[in-house]
Amino acid sequence: MKKVVNIRRKALAASEEHAAKLREQFAETGTLVLNLISSPGSGKTTLLETTVGRLAERFRFAVIEGDVATERDADRIRALGVPAHQVLTGGACHLDARQIEAALEKADLLPADILFIENVGNLICPTTYDLGEDFKIALLSVTEGDDKPFKYPAIFSRAAVTVITKADLLPHVPFDLDAVKECVSSLNPSGTIVVVSSTTGEGIDEWCDLLIGRLETKRGS
Amino acid sequence: MKKVVNIRRKALAASEEHAAKLREQFAETGTLVLNLISSPGSGKTTLLETTVGRLAERFRFAVIEGDVATERDADRIRALGVPAHQVLTGGACHLDARQIEAALEKADLLPADILFIENVGNLICPTTYDLGEDFKIALLSVTEGDDKPFKYPAIFSRAAVTVITKADLLPHVPFDLDAVKECVSSLNPSGTIVVVSSTTGEGIDEWCDLLIGRLETKRGS
Repeated sequence: MKKVVNIRRKALAASEEHAAKLREQFAETGTLVLNLISSPGSGKTTLLETTVGRLAERFRFAVIEGDVATERDADRIRALGVPAHQVLTGGACHLDARQIEAALEKADLLPADILFIENVGNLICPTTYDLGEDFKIALLSVTEGDDKPFKYPAIFSRAAVTVITKADLLPHVPFDLDAVKECVSSLNPSGTIVVVSSTTGEGIDEWCDLLIGRLETKRGS
Repeated sequence: MKKVVNIRRKALAASEEHAAKLREQFAETGTLVLNLISSPGSGKTTLLETTVGRLAERFRFAVIEGDVATERDADRIRALGVPAHQVLTGGACHLDARQIEAALEKADLLPADILFIENVGNLICPTTYDLGEDFKIALLSVTEGDDKPFKYPAIFSRAAVTVITKADLLPHVPFDLDAVKECVSSLNPSGTIVVVSSTTGEGIDEWCDLLIGRLETKRGS
């Protein structure tokens, strides 16, 4: 096992070098890069569709989609006129920095104002991989249950922003929103929590303002 | 990378030996062992609570819970008077056969008629690990979206049974049930699909009959 651990450590260190190079590249183009992480079906692609619908006239978006199989998510984004590249991991449970480099070489994604990287649907494995992003965003849909931040503390403590999605379904499911906010805040006191519904539009203004604010901060404007 | 792959292969082969030993042990006690796999929040623990509520007078149940953190799920099962052992993986994204062996040594779970192993909430990583189970059960909640069997084909092609959960929420979410059934059937022509709601009780009779039938088949009665 020690051998495996050492090889993993080396692989992780190499991956971090690639992430640092990506971060330099994104600084040059002034691109805000966001790494979206959640369980399968928490509404990552739907939130991106909603965001593009609101802001595409003001900002240039690009999207890298990570999935085990199918081009479905990239197709959904391309249908909105936004450049998107699908990374198919085969069986792997997360994206890594080299896949992001390869995506940028293959597809015409930069320059862009905001690059979304939609990670593979998985609340555990993508947590420790740096993709050169400005910050990680964790999504949690209300239908997944209010115990998830307690049960998957790593991602909720590392994500600068937690987006609670599918708020329109709150009347139909047991979900203690205050308890979730309290748990996420205790895991990550400097983090931000936004509650949204792509169906009703609840919280989407706040979410868009957050993106614009972070982009302005990055560009020092 | 070749070195990593070889070490992984050896680890997987060792794990398979442990699984084979577990399978012998379960054959001796006549225990039906089911490995439940799904995204976080698909309703695995809730389905177990519902099942125990229906069948605890007729059958002896035991549960092994796998989670990254917290004893919450085991506590929920113990509250029903059913022996449960919580395996905490730290950061690992799936259970392995050695953890099941250790759980059986530590906790007083056998003999039992049905042992449920609730895997870590993850639709990818647990798929390839044999825990000595009779078969794998994939859960998919309707709130996760009808594209999931296409996007995560490995688990849906390997699970002998797919349980579609939270059917009570169908009126509130876009989810093409027929398309999902068709996809799962094409991935796994010999598999069984059950649609349930632990909230309304829909499909729970069918689910319980399936468990009883599989237990009887295993015991040749």
